[in-house]
Amino acid sequence: MADASYESTYQTAAEDTGVRPTRPLRSADVPRWDHEADVVIVGLGGAGAAAAIEACQAGASVLILERASEGGGSTAQSGGIIYFGGGTPVQTACGFEDDPAEMLKYLLMASGPNPDAEKCRLYVEQSLEHFRWFEAQGIEFKRSYYPKKTTEPVTDDCLLYSGNENVWPFDVSAKAAPRGHKPKVEGSAGRVIMETLIGRVKELGADIQENARAQTLVVDEQGTVVGVHYKELGEPRYARAKRGVILCAGGFIMNRELVARHVPKLLNVNIQIGNPGDDGAGILMGLGVGAGTLCMGEGFVSVPFYPPSKLVSGIIVNAQGQRFINEDAYHGRTGEYVLQQSGGVAYLILDNECFGRPIAGMQIKAAEESIEELERGLELPEGSLTHTVSYYNRFAERGEDPLFHKAKNYLKPLVNGPYAALDLSVGKAIIPGFTMGGLDTLPTGEVLTADKHVVRGLYAAGRTTAGLPRSAAGYSSGMSIGGATFFGRLAGRTAATR
Amino acid sequence: MADASYESTYQTAAEDTGVRPTRPLRSADVPRWDHEADVVIVGLGGAGAAAAIEACQAGASVLILERASEGGGSTAQSGGIIYFGGGTPVQTACGFEDDPAEMLKYLLMASGPNPDAEKCRLYVEQSLEHFRWFEAQGIEFKRSYYPKKTTEPVTDDCLLYSGNENVWPFDVSAKAAPRGHKPKVEGSAGRVIMETLIGRVKELGADIQENARAQTLVVDEQGTVVGVHYKELGEPRYARAKRGVILCAGGFIMNRELVARHVPKLLNVNIQIGNPGDDGAGILMGLGVGAGTLCMGEGFVSVPFYPPSKLVSGIIVNAQGQRFINEDAYHGRTGEYVLQQSGGVAYLILDNECFGRPIAGMQIKAAEESIEELERGLELPEGSLTHTVSYYNRFAERGEDPLFHKAKNYLKPLVNGPYAALDLSVGKAIIPGFTMGGLDTLPTGEVLTADKHVVRGLYAAGRTTAGLPRSAAGYSSGMSIGGATFFGRLAGRTAATR
Repeated sequence: MADASYESTYQTAAEDTGVRPTRPLRSADVPRWDHEADVVIVGLGGAGAAAAIEACQAGASVLILERASEGGGSTAQSGGIIYFGGGTPVQTACGFEDDPAEMLKYLLMASGPNPDAEKCRLYVEQSLEHFRWFEAQGIEFKRSYYPKKTTEPVTDDCLLYSGNENVWPFDVSAKAAPRGHKPKVEGSAGRVIMETLIGRVKELGADIQENARAQTLVVDEQGTVVGVHYKELGEPRYARAKRGVILCAGGFIMNRELVARHVPKLLNVNIQIGNPGDDGAGILMGLGVGAGTLCMGEGFVSVPFYPPSKLVSGIIVNAQGQRFINEDAYHGRTGEYVLQQSGGVAYLILDNECFGRPIAGMQIKAAEESIEELERGLELPEGSLTHTVSYYNRFAERGEDPLFHKAKNYLKPLVNGPYAALDLSVGKAIIPGFTMGGLDTLPTGEVLTADKHVVRGLYAAGRTTAGLPRSAAGYSSGMSIGGATFFGRLAGRTAATR
Repeated sequence: MADASYESTYQTAAEDTGVRPTRPLRSADVPRWDHEADVVIVGLGGAGAAAAIEACQAGASVLILERASEGGGSTAQSGGIIYFGGGTPVQTACGFEDDPAEMLKYLLMASGPNPDAEKCRLYVEQSLEHFRWFEAQGIEFKRSYYPKKTTEPVTDDCLLYSGNENVWPFDVSAKAAPRGHKPKVEGSAGRVIMETLIGRVKELGADIQENARAQTLVVDEQGTVVGVHYKELGEPRYARAKRGVILCAGGFIMNRELVARHVPKLLNVNIQIGNPGDDGAGILMGLGVGAGTLCMGEGFVSVPFYPPSKLVSGIIVNAQGQRFINEDAYHGRTGEYVLQQSGGVAYLILDNECFGRPIAGMQIKAAEESIEELERGLELPEGSLTHTVSYYNRFAERGEDPLFHKAKNYLKPLVNGPYAALDLSVGKAIIPGFTMGGLDTLPTGEVLTADKHVVRGLYAAGRTTAGLPRSAAGYSSGMSIGGATFFGRLAGRTAATR
């Protein structure tokens, strides 16, 4: 057992992982303070901007360290859907009733086997206030409903079903209402959200340092977080935080080593949802001062096979030629189930009527005149797909889906050849993903150690934390920006008034 | 936003979780050293005993702290199967060829998307040596093969297929060989393994303190681990470790709070595989000195529906009346798949010929004269089970299973009524489980920080670490004791010669 040789091999390999040291710097070792503010925020994405606005409004001086050359983070890159409910002005104007109790039921169910009930409850309780806050920042929401199944409306319409609210089995347990709210912008609204919030941050007088990459937290002799050591275009800098540091530095989908060790299923993802800063730096800094983590094994994956929504009238089958999900489920839920199938194999079977041009990058695996030929073309077991289609058709004719309860409007017998199979398989389809685990925090943003003590002076929000969404099978679009901004605001206010 | 009230609520709740503080004690604060040894080992299960034997043989003085009133740990409670291969004397005597390269392929595939290739390679390379080591300790292995499908032989036979080696899809990628080796004892052999190893530990002169519960690690000013603070029947004690401390303190399946935050799926388990000491104490002590963790989101679950092996000739269906796995898969793989089905529903469908008395605690959900009646009795969708059975029967008659490739010897058409359905569903079936994540270690047992630096003076092995097995869908019986003892030995030797 040549221990010595293994040790040296390993140590060398470990140096290449890019998982940087996160041990805090002791304040006694800080050569000088280049900046001083009540609150120092690491990262100017959705969470950081919301935290900064609240902290400024609570009277605190705020310094924001953004590693990119401009703020925005992953929120700016996103579609910009925000999860609100319980009777928002948009829901009401569009004729939807939404009881907060039903929204809470949904959130608890969607969060998986281990929801943060307090965070869910607060989020629901304050949802209308949070919606009004967005409007007060200058973000407009059209009083309109977008009825189609999509990942993100291309119009400037606002309200949509952005998750599994109206699909089985969620609709059985909680009364459905659409809760995705997109600002009034044609197409993606993430950039407008961030331009608006950053504009507000500037108006309120926060100091924004761009190209400023946080290196480590600074702690005093009691272990209280009192600042951040960062580099500004490579030059070492030291910022003192008189009241607290808020980590809003994103998740870790860009850090392959961390993904491999905590969420190995995300190694199947071929589009990392995030920005290059999502390398786990914030989580690692938190760990360095004793923070605990939560749900680090959870990750969102998606197989975004729609729009167009007519594709939802197709059926998805696995390598056994069997269906395994209601095709009208949210694309994230579908992605989670695709990963669970043997060999990660899944095909969307379409007839000529429900066929539509799929999004760029999707591949047609086979196209044939009959289902029998398609079965052979896909090398599915003899009689498997033909049975699945004939069974599906028999009930679809009556508007029923006894297996998976797909909604009636998508139930159309597949009888008009030719037929095609879109490849939704792992390694073939577009499979975007992001991490869901992170630092353990109180609803107030206070970071907790593994043994549930507060790390004094440290706060966190957004994807750096384990927030509202924490189950791939239950995620809805809008939970990320909704949770990041809501709990970012709370963190900003808590830190400012410490 | 009543921050203050949330803070106090949370802090109170957090005190109730039973997740104990794990911050290390500074050596300057140690009032006295009650004991001193070269190597201090926390936990006398399989890993701890193996580590102690090697450390003693390398000339070190060894102190073992065992919190229970006697050693044994979860290994003593287990069936005692150990995973060996690559041509062991038992494999050879029973006529099985096993190429180490095939064993390595299997281990890499079984470990999931993120195997520890170095640990797998070493484990295979030294498998014969490890087998001989067990024999040298006085553990006998009969040169016999147990051919039936079981969770654990009731005879004193040795060799069995204890995982997915000979089932689809593993058999396609790596040449199968049975690698589970059970010591020559009728039924469970865990106790004999531990009695033998503990006997050896005593012969070699290690000092065993029972009723000694480790509280925290002790570190010097450089952060090097130099001892353990423990309590002996409630009295504080301090043990100095001159060369190192080895954490062999088990996993965390008994700590509901840790399970909820890291492996929420294990909340579905109704039999915790382990002993009361598996509360994560070792992992938490490691975290307290900066150790990193790995695979904390992975957990083993099982639906042990066989023996008798004739039950494997039944078919398992979900709430859609569809099969979703080859029924001859290892019961752990089956358990993982059951958890993934809608509502966690699964039934084992049997005819009168393959019916046999199931293990205690299993419930018959329905029994009927025909498959049509069984379908109605189980409230399965109309025409679902009847199709599944007729399709299965059609191919089983020819010895084929085009969907899931169950082995020929279990393919018997289900045609002899009456028919019964055993309930394998979550909440109904016996679902044992254990945690698979833990401290990140080198093959030598050296514990690594999150940024891959060695924590000086600290070693770990067994379930306290993320070891060989790290995927519920790929686990084989014997990997736990095999990995715990193999890497326990390495840790003992490394610490002793530091």
